[in-house]
Amino acid sequence: MNTQKRPLILVSNDDGITAPGIRALIQVMNEIGDVVVVAPDSPQSGKGHAITLDAILECKPITIDQGEQIEYSCSGTPADCVKIAKHEILNRKPDLCVSGINHGSNASINVVYSGTMSAAIEAGIEGIPAIGFSLLDYSWKANFENLKPFIKQITTKVLSEGLPDGVILNVNFPKTENIKGVKVCRQARAVWKEEFEKRTNPQGKEYYWLTGVFDNLDKGEDTDIYALEQDFISVVPVKFDLTAHHFIQNLNSWF
Amino acid sequence: MNTQKRPLILVSNDDGITAPGIRALIQVMNEIGDVVVVAPDSPQSGKGHAITLDAILECKPITIDQGEQIEYSCSGTPADCVKIAKHEILNRKPDLCVSGINHGSNASINVVYSGTMSAAIEAGIEGIPAIGFSLLDYSWKANFENLKPFIKQITTKVLSEGLPDGVILNVNFPKTENIKGVKVCRQARAVWKEEFEKRTNPQGKEYYWLTGVFDNLDKGEDTDIYALEQDFISVVPVKFDLTAHHFIQNLNSWF
Repeated sequence: MNTQKRPLILVSNDDGITAPGIRALIQVMNEIGDVVVVAPDSPQSGKGHAITLDAILECKPITIDQGEQIEYSCSGTPADCVKIAKHEILNRKPDLCVSGINHGSNASINVVYSGTMSAAIEAGIEGIPAIGFSLLDYSWKANFENLKPFIKQITTKVLSEGLPDGVILNVNFPKTENIKGVKVCRQARAVWKEEFEKRTNPQGKEYYWLTGVFDNLDKGEDTDIYALEQDFISVVPVKFDLTAHHFIQNLNSWF
Repeated sequence: MNTQKRPLILVSNDDGITAPGIRALIQVMNEIGDVVVVAPDSPQSGKGHAITLDAILECKPITIDQGEQIEYSCSGTPADCVKIAKHEILNRKPDLCVSGINHGSNASINVVYSGTMSAAIEAGIEGIPAIGFSLLDYSWKANFENLKPFIKQITTKVLSEGLPDGVILNVNFPKTENIKGVKVCRQARAVWKEEFEKRTNPQGKEYYWLTGVFDNLDKGEDTDIYALEQDFISVVPVKFDLTAHHFIQNLNSWF
């Protein structure tokens, strides 16, 4: 962090640029640095690390509310937003990228499906320190107020300490008025038990809706799910080197 | 693997069910087991680990060619295909899931954006041993013939040895007639240097096409990129536990 100047902070999300979660995050970031928002023009939940290769992208300046931030709304995915911000909108590499506050959990295996985390991870790939913030409350009327001091604390810590190359923070907040503190965790091993709802359209054609129930397979007390159940904020350092390094030695004997 | 019966093999991809790559993969799998194909009805490249939460899914039996496989075409993403196969189509958990053969590289950072790998990773999340296969040739006329013995070798090895929970294989083939062998590798650290192409539509509105140049930042000789450059097949064990375990200890001192 350049202590002479205010840091340049890129903000994105996956719920869309008008979502209450990103508006709350922008308010906190305006207290910390110069904020540029590049966020999807429509909800992009569950879009994983999708990028747009088969369609055009539109990106235009927009004013949503009266803060000091500069904002752009983009037709693409969260990862597209970070790419276009870095390469077309910002005139220098930002000091930080924050994504969220997501309406709903990105703890455990949700990190793999999350558009919010894909924005943060895309920034990490570009060498930008990045944090994804999520609240375990899907409601559009969720209360983000009591999260703000924690977001400020974690963000200023990342700006002062930095993050190792390839590491991004995945921060999830419990849905409670009485947050007990912050726990550094590992990602819980879990799976969505899918329940496809089969329906028939007016023309008699069958179709499905994807639904499911979250199933935590992990009894560990060092996981994000455990911390959140105990009303702690979970902070998981995540990486985009997906190599299962522990299995390389064994696998070598196969060939 | 149950040696009494032929293994049940689920096949998917991201280039779509009619792509030459998946047709070649099905031919190899028909020699090994009972094959059920559930693949996207249209190209899904770059879709990352997207799932379909905001739209309906259609999935219907289809016959593409005369093999022994049973096939379904699905309107969703590769990850959707695996979910719907597991929960709606197959009457037991498959012994293996293979995805590909992708037309184009999924080595290095491409694994994060890859629909092909997301199908394999989704299977891994479900506890199904899984392999993604990709060829470093985007052409629809790419030659898959010389890959078949290697695909058979790797697949039968996975069926006989199994894979640890949470580990999936990412196999990439070099574009060459003279493959030198197989190398177990780690994922190279790389980034796409984006070059957005700005255009103006007939109504005068600006838009972008996302393009880019692959930039390998990694000088290691144990990476997938290095192996492929030397005409070896790269096999990277990948995982969906994204936790940066090496940074947990340090991060604990922050809070």
